[in-house]
Amino acid sequence: MHHPRHKTSQTQFQLERFTFFTDGVFAICITLLVIEIKVPNRDELGIFTDASLWKYLSHASLKFLGFLISFGIIGHYWSVHHRIFGYAVNYTYGLIWINLAFLFSVVLLPFSSGLLGEYNSDTNMFLPYGVYVANMCFTGTMNCWLWLYISKPERNLLTHRISHARIQLGLYRSMVIPVIFIVALGFSFFLPVVSRFIPVLIPVILHWGMKGLEKKADRKDANVIETHHHETSSDG
Amino acid sequence: MHHPRHKTSQTQFQLERFTFFTDGVFAICITLLVIEIKVPNRDELGIFTDASLWKYLSHASLKFLGFLISFGIIGHYWSVHHRIFGYAVNYTYGLIWINLAFLFSVVLLPFSSGLLGEYNSDTNMFLPYGVYVANMCFTGTMNCWLWLYISKPERNLLTHRISHARIQLGLYRSMVIPVIFIVALGFSFFLPVVSRFIPVLIPVILHWGMKGLEKKADRKDANVIETHHHETSSDG
Amino acid sequence: MHHPRHKTSQTQFQLERFTFFTDGVFAICITLLVIEIKVPNRDELGIFTDASLWKYLSHASLKFLGFLISFGIIGHYWSVHHRIFGYAVNYTYGLIWINLAFLFSVVLLPFSSGLLGEYNSDTNMFLPYGVYVANMCFTGTMNCWLWLYISKPERNLLTHRISHARIQLGLYRSMVIPVIFIVALGFSFFLPVVSRFIPVLIPVILHWGMKGLEKKADRKDANVIETHHHETSSDG
Amino acid sequence: MHHPRHKTSQTQFQLERFTFFTDGVFAICITLLVIEIKVPNRDELGIFTDASLWKYLSHASLKFLGFLISFGIIGHYWSVHHRIFGYAVNYTYGLIWINLAFLFSVVLLPFSSGLLGEYNSDTNMFLPYGVYVANMCFTGTMNCWLWLYISKPERNLLTHRISHARIQLGLYRSMVIPVIFIVALGFSFFLPVVSRFIPVLIPVILHWGMKGLEKKADRKDANVIETHHHETSSDG
Repeated sequence: MHHPRHKTSQTQFQLERFTFFTDGVFAICITLLVIEIKVPNRDELGIFTDASLWKYLSHASLKFLGFLISFGIIGHYWSVHHRIFGYAVNYTYGLIWINLAFLFSVVLLPFSSGLLGEYNSDTNMFLPYGVYVANMCFTGTMNCWLWLYISKPERNLLTHRISHARIQLGLYRSMVIPVIFIVALGFSFFLPVVSRFIPVLIPVILHWGMKGLEKKADRKDANVIETHHHETSSDG
Repeated sequence: MHHPRHKTSQTQFQLERFTFFTDGVFAICITLLVIEIKVPNRDELGIFTDASLWKYLSHASLKFLGFLISFGIIGHYWSVHHRIFGYAVNYTYGLIWINLAFLFSVVLLPFSSGLLGEYNSDTNMFLPYGVYVANMCFTGTMNCWLWLYISKPERNLLTHRISHARIQLGLYRSMVIPVIFIVALGFSFFLPVVSRFIPVLIPVILHWGMKGLEKKADRKDANVIETHHHETSSDG
Repeated sequence: MHHPRHKTSQTQFQLERFTFFTDGVFAICITLLVIEIKVPNRDELGIFTDASLWKYLSHASLKFLGFLISFGIIGHYWSVHHRIFGYAVNYTYGLIWINLAFLFSVVLLPFSSGLLGEYNSDTNMFLPYGVYVANMCFTGTMNCWLWLYISKPERNLLTHRISHARIQLGLYRSMVIPVIFIVALGFSFFLPVVSRFIPVLIPVILHWGMKGLEKKADRKDANVIETHHHETSSDG
Repeated sequence: MHHPRHKTSQTQFQLERFTFFTDGVFAICITLLVIEIKVPNRDELGIFTDASLWKYLSHASLKFLGFLISFGIIGHYWSVHHRIFGYAVNYTYGLIWINLAFLFSVVLLPFSSGLLGEYNSDTNMFLPYGVYVANMCFTGTMNCWLWLYISKPERNLLTHRISHARIQLGLYRSMVIPVIFIVALGFSFFLPVVSRFIPVLIPVILHWGMKGLEKKADRKDANVIETHHHETSSDG
């Protein structure tokens, strides 16, 4: 795409703005998510005793749980973005737009999550959960694209060469959330109660299920660096 | 205007605050845009089935499309601001105020865009679209001014000399969005359906329509650097 | 106050967080100000023609003007904060708390400004304008305090010694807005129409009325540097 | 946990994003807190005179006081976070998640604080205050955990070795707010009026009550550095 004709000394500064803008959007999203939990209006709802307030709050607890999950997921995607850009030393205009599309999918999460919270108790409705899962798939796919775009060796956007195994690890990791939610959506038609607990698998898989692949990536990365050293020294 | 008597070593830090404040405003604007899409209240609207929710959501899809477009446009203006300040090494108080006026126009976009979304289905109303186009023209003009102010060689705010062709390229680029929207507004009186699709031209023109001008700017920039080198070496 | 036992190499990083946190609060405040202008609900207000929308918008224009003024004032205070911290190389816990109090006064501005906007047309009410002016005085005073605290030579928080004339200039500048608003409040009892136009004086005084004092500060600053050089060279 | 395979030259940049994301969340939280104070709607509430507006505002003043306290507490926690990360030179994925949990507790504060504000005048209700205190305890505990995690010598996340006395000082400091609020909650059953004034102790204890411990920490820190120097020189 159009390459900017900026001085190379400005690249670090430009990349910082890029990531801080992203951080700003994430920070607002993650905060607004919880701000959605409205304080119950005393006079409107006729809440004048601890018992009635407790009833209201315990009724809202499922909604609250939904927000907690969405908070965790947005937090997770931020940490993934943080990890991805830990490798970056350059950017392109294409990357800016993929990132904007990724942010668009993140910015929709409070809406999908709020929709799910509002219609959570209606066990006969599947659409709210469908919208939520669709959003998760959108975010997961954009996350994938971001990683594939930035890690492509020909683009020279990274600090150092990384192994193919590490690129694949990032790919698998970004697919965990969408895949688990699609499975949970499928189960929701037959076993709605079981389906609610399937997302618990996400942290388990992300933490323990990836250990083997991570070790492989570490081993391969070491090789890449060695090969690279060899090439450089044989060049010199 | 009043020149600050700060140490020159602080300039980079001051410029960073300048751009991060701008990024903050952009991040909030772009997030609040989508947050405007409210979760439909179940009890108020009597939505108890997937069918009625689907009806509600599909009805809101035009509104949603409007927000997608505004998200893209705010994202575009952020990327333009990002590109402009990639050249900057200094600032003035005049620049701070032009930037604030630019931000003011950006901050109004969620309102104009929300107004258009609310009255989108009323094909007999032209005012909402008029307000939206007026806002686009305001933002485009401020963007122009920002670029002309910062790129003026006498002000010495840039990292390096850039050609007149590049300055003009920036000018044309910032005019694309307002001009297209004015054309679309004109068409909306005669061919309302065609008019809705005219903004699709924006990414097309910004991406392909500028190729020739960009090559020219690249060629001229190379000349500027060469001439500058000559001057410097003949000076020495 | 409690002095942090951080490494001195971290001071720049800590100061950056300090200012970026401040920028974040300013960015949110200035954006939320304009976001307060609500899109008129079509069905609730029965707006189905351009004429009725135009009537609504022109009715809201006074409110809009109020927001424009508040946007300008918050923007001004940001630029003043930006200017003050252009001199800073260090901070104390006392400064963090004065800054938080300053931010508190800024964060209240959307409320006071919204109150004024809501009750603007009631010429028999003085309280909304009183609250607004009180908030302006609060912000101006905190701004003063921030500047006096940071510029006190004994605290060693600045990049270099500045003259007493420059410290006074900053003091006068931060008093302009509160003083003008108090005068306007006074006039509002006798000449309500004239009173509305008095704040127009603010940019005039800040821009032209301070020229003489600025030149004096420049001259004195040059002396300070010279004296300081002399002292240093006679020490060596 | 999974250690990122980033270049070490990127660590500073990654840590900056980490803290700026946190600052963003804090900035939004602290701003939204005050934004909750709604402008009274003139027509809905029938406020057409200064007297009726004054009545409304004075009625809301208790609510306002609650927001002031919450503003101070969020500001305090930000300053503590700022102080903690003044020691940090590295991070782990574990730290990212503890920080997210800490932010989650902070993000809930506007809700608990709003709940308390809404039900403040009902002296027969204890639940709102209970929720508020529970939130304070949650935030205090996460703050503790953050400090214990980052200060653990084996993790090597700090700029330099700090004494055990300083680690304990941080621990005590983060417990002051939760402990005071638990005491205040206890008193609220017997002496509700006295109970309201107990939180006034917080700044007193944080400012004067810690002087002795601080001096001890300073003395011990000096020892640590000396011992460390000895060790290093005897190693060499």
